[in-house]
Amino acid sequence: MRMRFALGGLAALCATAAMTVGAVADEGMWTFDAFPSARVKELYGFAPDQKWLDRVRLGSVRLEGGCSGSVVSKDGLVLTNHHCVSDCASALSSASSDYLQDGFFTKARSDERICPGGEASILKSITDVTTRVKAATADVTSAEVNAARAAKIAEIEREVCGDDRTRRCQVVNLYRGGQYKLHVYDRYDDVRLAFAPEMQAGFFGGDPDNFNFPRYALDMALLRLYRNGQPVTFMDPLQIDAAGPKAGELVFVSGHPGSTERLLTVAQLEFQRDHFLPWRIEYLSQVRGAMLNEATKGEEEARQVSDALPGVENSLKVFKGQRGALVEPSFFAAKVGEEQRLRDALAADAALRAAYGDPFADIASLVSAQKKAFLPYQMLEVRFGAGSVLLADARILTRAAAEGGKPDADRLPEYRSARLAATERGLMAEAPVLPFLEKLEIAFWLEKTREYLGPDHPAVKAMFGARTSNQIAADIVAASQIADPAFRRRLWDDPAQVTTSNDPAIALVRTMDEAARAARKTYETTVSGPASVAAERLAALRFHVLGQGIYPDATFTLRLSYGVVKGWTDPALGDVPPFTYASGLWTRATGAYPFNLAASWVGKEAVIPAGTQFNFVSTNDIIGGNSGSPVLNKAGRIIGLVFDGNIHSTGGSFGFDPELNRTVSVSSQMIVAALRGVYGANALADELVK
Amino acid sequence: MRMRFALGGLAALCATAAMTVGAVADEGMWTFDAFPSARVKELYGFAPDQKWLDRVRLGSVRLEGGCSGSVVSKDGLVLTNHHCVSDCASALSSASSDYLQDGFFTKARSDERICPGGEASILKSITDVTTRVKAATADVTSAEVNAARAAKIAEIEREVCGDDRTRRCQVVNLYRGGQYKLHVYDRYDDVRLAFAPEMQAGFFGGDPDNFNFPRYALDMALLRLYRNGQPVTFMDPLQIDAAGPKAGELVFVSGHPGSTERLLTVAQLEFQRDHFLPWRIEYLSQVRGAMLNEATKGEEEARQVSDALPGVENSLKVFKGQRGALVEPSFFAAKVGEEQRLRDALAADAALRAAYGDPFADIASLVSAQKKAFLPYQMLEVRFGAGSVLLADARILTRAAAEGGKPDADRLPEYRSARLAATERGLMAEAPVLPFLEKLEIAFWLEKTREYLGPDHPAVKAMFGARTSNQIAADIVAASQIADPAFRRRLWDDPAQVTTSNDPAIALVRTMDEAARAARKTYETTVSGPASVAAERLAALRFHVLGQGIYPDATFTLRLSYGVVKGWTDPALGDVPPFTYASGLWTRATGAYPFNLAASWVGKEAVIPAGTQFNFVSTNDIIGGNSGSPVLNKAGRIIGLVFDGNIHSTGGSFGFDPELNRTVSVSSQMIVAALRGVYGANALADELVK
Repeated sequence: MRMRFALGGLAALCATAAMTVGAVADEGMWTFDAFPSARVKELYGFAPDQKWLDRVRLGSVRLEGGCSGSVVSKDGLVLTNHHCVSDCASALSSASSDYLQDGFFTKARSDERICPGGEASILKSITDVTTRVKAATADVTSAEVNAARAAKIAEIEREVCGDDRTRRCQVVNLYRGGQYKLHVYDRYDDVRLAFAPEMQAGFFGGDPDNFNFPRYALDMALLRLYRNGQPVTFMDPLQIDAAGPKAGELVFVSGHPGSTERLLTVAQLEFQRDHFLPWRIEYLSQVRGAMLNEATKGEEEARQVSDALPGVENSLKVFKGQRGALVEPSFFAAKVGEEQRLRDALAADAALRAAYGDPFADIASLVSAQKKAFLPYQMLEVRFGAGSVLLADARILTRAAAEGGKPDADRLPEYRSARLAATERGLMAEAPVLPFLEKLEIAFWLEKTREYLGPDHPAVKAMFGARTSNQIAADIVAASQIADPAFRRRLWDDPAQVTTSNDPAIALVRTMDEAARAARKTYETTVSGPASVAAERLAALRFHVLGQGIYPDATFTLRLSYGVVKGWTDPALGDVPPFTYASGLWTRATGAYPFNLAASWVGKEAVIPAGTQFNFVSTNDIIGGNSGSPVLNKAGRIIGLVFDGNIHSTGGSFGFDPELNRTVSVSSQMIVAALRGVYGANALADELVK
Repeated sequence: MRMRFALGGLAALCATAAMTVGAVADEGMWTFDAFPSARVKELYGFAPDQKWLDRVRLGSVRLEGGCSGSVVSKDGLVLTNHHCVSDCASALSSASSDYLQDGFFTKARSDERICPGGEASILKSITDVTTRVKAATADVTSAEVNAARAAKIAEIEREVCGDDRTRRCQVVNLYRGGQYKLHVYDRYDDVRLAFAPEMQAGFFGGDPDNFNFPRYALDMALLRLYRNGQPVTFMDPLQIDAAGPKAGELVFVSGHPGSTERLLTVAQLEFQRDHFLPWRIEYLSQVRGAMLNEATKGEEEARQVSDALPGVENSLKVFKGQRGALVEPSFFAAKVGEEQRLRDALAADAALRAAYGDPFADIASLVSAQKKAFLPYQMLEVRFGAGSVLLADARILTRAAAEGGKPDADRLPEYRSARLAATERGLMAEAPVLPFLEKLEIAFWLEKTREYLGPDHPAVKAMFGARTSNQIAADIVAASQIADPAFRRRLWDDPAQVTTSNDPAIALVRTMDEAARAARKTYETTVSGPASVAAERLAALRFHVLGQGIYPDATFTLRLSYGVVKGWTDPALGDVPPFTYASGLWTRATGAYPFNLAASWVGKEAVIPAGTQFNFVSTNDIIGGNSGSPVLNKAGRIIGLVFDGNIHSTGGSFGFDPELNRTVSVSSQMIVAALRGVYGANALADELVK
């Protein structure tokens, strides 16, 4: 694990742009329409040509749950990580079959099962729409800018994709307002699970080994894309080269890094360091403690938290790494230095000041508003329900009913006609409701909301009334009908029933939704809206000073990074070589979780040659969302599968350290060896290497 | 809650001294032998004379569990907080009688019950021993300084108190090496519980209201000191004035503030802000989540965590407040400014540099060692077992057996003859072992130790072997005999049995105690030892530059603070008046925890006059350890009982803000009214106000 990207998980006040210009070595998550071929050629004597780039782009898959993947067979087989299919494996499971823990194996294609809510996209075209989008906000107040921009973007997306469910249109904000580009994807909403090993194989070493290396994780899975009930045909899939990578080899990672914040202003970084990240770490630590304790209470309790807990622990390591980077004086000084270069340019040139004003001061002036607004916004809106499916769906139903009666332009963006179908699909997806987990999440969310907003906040008072958090949570889990798809369907189709419903989840939403909307509006009009206006000026200034040869922050859109297979010299561990081998697994296995072998691996020591490459590291610059990305050699063949970064990479949101940051991947040697030797999945293995 | 002081809970690398000289208003926790009478007289037209000071000192009680109290009757009745007797009430409870939740009430003195392990002290004399202590470390290396100083201190203490169990001798380090003073106390080890209201009365509003105001908590309890089975007679007790305080009135707080860190150097403050406090907050947040979850699992589970959880939540708020203060730019700039004044003096005067060197640079140079050493030291030594009584006692037995064979001077200080009796008493105190809580704490501690030290740390590997944290914890709770006092007695008396014991708690200690000792030694020789040497020079420099009219950091020794009864203007809440009244309780009670009324209060609205003062705030400068302190008027009579600070005071460890920081107390009006009207404890009320 766990370079998966938690959608919607990031603070909204972020500027964006490149870390450094002329970065040496292997920094950058580059767009496919602006890949620095000349630089790579100069460094490594090879650069991908347009044909290489096109072929890799069309073999690269975005999994809408926050991951990447690659098409590895003509019949639409997609290679990705185990932790990218854990939601699917969990959703397909029941009390009698636990596909997440025990693995999901197929004998024939007819055994492949649809992932509830699963969606995949492949990027077909990129078009610059910067001028149109910027024009839409030219004459509006900063409080209205978010809404005006969103409306224009929806219009552009709708123009091209309309109601076509086989395509996805998305206008992407690159360089935080430096560019707006329309991405058009082929869209697949029949995504089936073909193979997943046991969780213990995919996540051997558990949280202790997560983000660490040396490592022995078979964090792989196979999906297949279907349309009209048939596997989709791809004429030119990316193919696996079972020979695996070599030390020092030039390699590329094609995938969808979720979000970086490498050019926040110093004021924004200080807010992250001193307020946002400490809050997130505290929040996640508490829910982690609750989940770990819940898991000791019984097998069913353990099963119910087993999908959510690793995500919590993973985020926690990331946020701790981010905070750790920002409190490192040399790191922070480098960020200050980068900003100073732009500030100096501004100070030296009246024309620049006239054109761009002082975006640094403008953004800094928003921080006090942000300090006030971020907790109500986070607790009532962004983190509403802390993961509870019942509460999330209750809110969708409640808001859809309220928004449906308004003119399209007045609605919350996710309820406008352009996005309503996606919202409906999300609501109707068959997500299992796990009562132990729901209770824990609802009670936790209520407690934390009261803690951060205070017991005297009107929304808190209204929600609690004369009950405790545990009573409210128990009532909802016992009595809500939201888990029933027919109930959701009925209320979606007939909003009047929402208004009169006494379902306890809907009743809870009713008590606080006005406050949540108000918190959102406050945040957007006093923080994120004005910040986006200043950030557009900052982006333009940055282009002016640094030129165009810089890469944008990650936006969960397709990027290509380059690097070499290479270990590192660690301050704590000393020299870390780039590869692990099969033999190391047997040494590391203690027999006790998280260092126990998955069932299929017990007694298989003789089956996998001891020298088979297991995991490896490379210098590619990646981040959460790159999970499942293929590692490609110069020939464009897959020699590895990205699933993690090393511990130093957890600060990667704010900058890249070529000495220490490493991508961690499964070697193609082990992918093929395990499919054949451990799992007897010879048909899939044959299809993969064909 | 909760100005109780968690002993042993603070980082060891701390310099100490006064916040500012000539601090205006009401700053300072002053020693009784250097109270700034002239300043107080100037500010308020009144100052206590020596007689006043002596009488208040002799009526002030230190409760060794980390609290304060006052003698309020000739028959040895001691007024303190409910949360200061919660350990006692919990220890006296059983599955059939829960004195913590339900209250502890007596009809006659014969109903009063001994608090297991309870100890109280009253300060009789203060003697300066600075010269002797400093001489002992004059010629030793900085790695040996801690041991040499501890030996000299033990010698001095032993000279005066010997084996006399009716006295307690303690050499206190004031101004972090600026002064060493011998404090001699009368010691009482038969402390009995006479009255405790229900937890819900003492802690009305629970964690949400903790550190907040307005407030409605009857956080009071009564203990009685006994000797030879009889109540101890006090000829001149402090007496309660049931009239209560008036707005604007000058008031004094006499008590035992536990620890402040107001003159850490900037380098030390940065370490606290960026490393120590974030780590503590994350640690406590996780255990809080676990405990809150455990409490939902059943009544017995809830009971078992009910004493520990508030302490965790209380510490968490304190640490968050401390971190919040340090990331406030104006606050931190003030600390930098204070240091700059001393640095400037040093830079301007070669004689000072010759005398004191550069203690700032010396202390700053230790921070990188501290970053490396603090987690092993904290996890293996300071926080060993995370509260588990079984593990703590197993370690005492194991170490006593190992140390017993060594010459006195070579032993760990707590096993030298001077302190062995206290260690034995701690071991043999009848603390209840709560299996659900033990399991939670042991598993938590194992997980966190593995997390912070890594799965490859030798001690971690040795402890875990082929088991999970939950298996290890379950084994210990199921099979350890440590909970049996006879077993502990046997092993204490016959150390050979420790060596051969296969008790699982002792076996665990055996696997990691060498590593724990090594971590402690590393910390002491590379961090706290050298820091104490530099701090002595810093203290001398500070006296030189600022003079003697400054107060020392808190050290859980008797201090007097002055202030006035006064509300404040809150950035979030606006004007907060100084008093709450009985009427407000009935308005705030929702019926649901933590805003439900305690059983005794239900239906009592008519009994307590609506205008009875409930809680109040004053500008006194206090900190954890001051819990249970009397609030005294000019006449030296008790008009309130300190139990908390407001939320702004949580940053008080590093500095005092007279505009915002407030002490929160129970009014003597309510103490008497509740005893009579709600609890019918008329005999005790009569004794109190006599």
